[in-house]
Amino acid sequence: MVRDDVLPVAAPDGESAAELQARKFQRELSAGLTALVLLSVLAEAESDLYGYEIARRLSTEALPSAPFKQGALYPVLRNMSSAGLLSSRVVPSYSGPPRRYYRITSLGREVLAAWRETWLSTRAFVDTVVHPTAAQETSS
Amino acid sequence: MVRDDVLPVAAPDGESAAELQARKFQRELSAGLTALVLLSVLAEAESDLYGYEIARRLSTEALPSAPFKQGALYPVLRNMSSAGLLSSRVVPSYSGPPRRYYRITSLGREVLAAWRETWLSTRAFVDTVVHPTAAQETSS
Repeated sequence: MVRDDVLPVAAPDGESAAELQARKFQRELSAGLTALVLLSVLAEAESDLYGYEIARRLSTEALPSAPFKQGALYPVLRNMSSAGLLSSRVVPSYSGPPRRYYRITSLGREVLAAWRETWLSTRAFVDTVVHPTAAQETSS
Repeated sequence: MVRDDVLPVAAPDGESAAELQARKFQRELSAGLTALVLLSVLAEAESDLYGYEIARRLSTEALPSAPFKQGALYPVLRNMSSAGLLSSRVVPSYSGPPRRYYRITSLGREVLAAWRETWLSTRAFVDTVVHPTAAQETSS
């Protein structure tokens, strides 16, 4: 399985050092947060959802600029299933290939509560250190 | 070089599935953010800093609960040096081993500005999806 939870940018040959670093940062930041976001959507869903439905909820409910590609959701869903955070069932579809529906498990809810706490405390820590205008101030 | 940007928790044998997931999430979340935080501190520093000084600023300026151990800072500083985001010089110390002082480069400032944008937009995206009280609501 290829990891592709990265920016929707093909690896370019003429990429600058700054662009490379920006892409690496986005990839690392998305790695954990993709799972948090998917688990949150499934925790609030009123029924089982398949991958495309989850992706659609993310693009309509939230900002249009999700920090990952739709294709990046599927390996994360599979990994969370293997880890017991989700259960899934495959349902035949009239209009295409069978769909795999996901539902959060009780372990998944327990893990989501812990991840959310981690997210909130980490976010607060980063925000005390990273001041939005500091780069401008210091370089002027 | 061993990656050790993880929670200050030894890998325990009796770890539960939820604890394992919590540790994995913290590790992934910290991987990118440690570099962002260090680069921010160096961007605002009035002089070159060595590792322990950076760690001290993080524990006094910010919340006491930094999401990484002090020892985790050093490999990140070295990696950012190799990538040209920092320059460094080694200075002998009267009281112990020589100290490596770090300073942000102009590439580092450019990268920091991009990382900060990525952080702000990713944070906004996650916050629209992850609602602090949703787990309680849905599981009740």
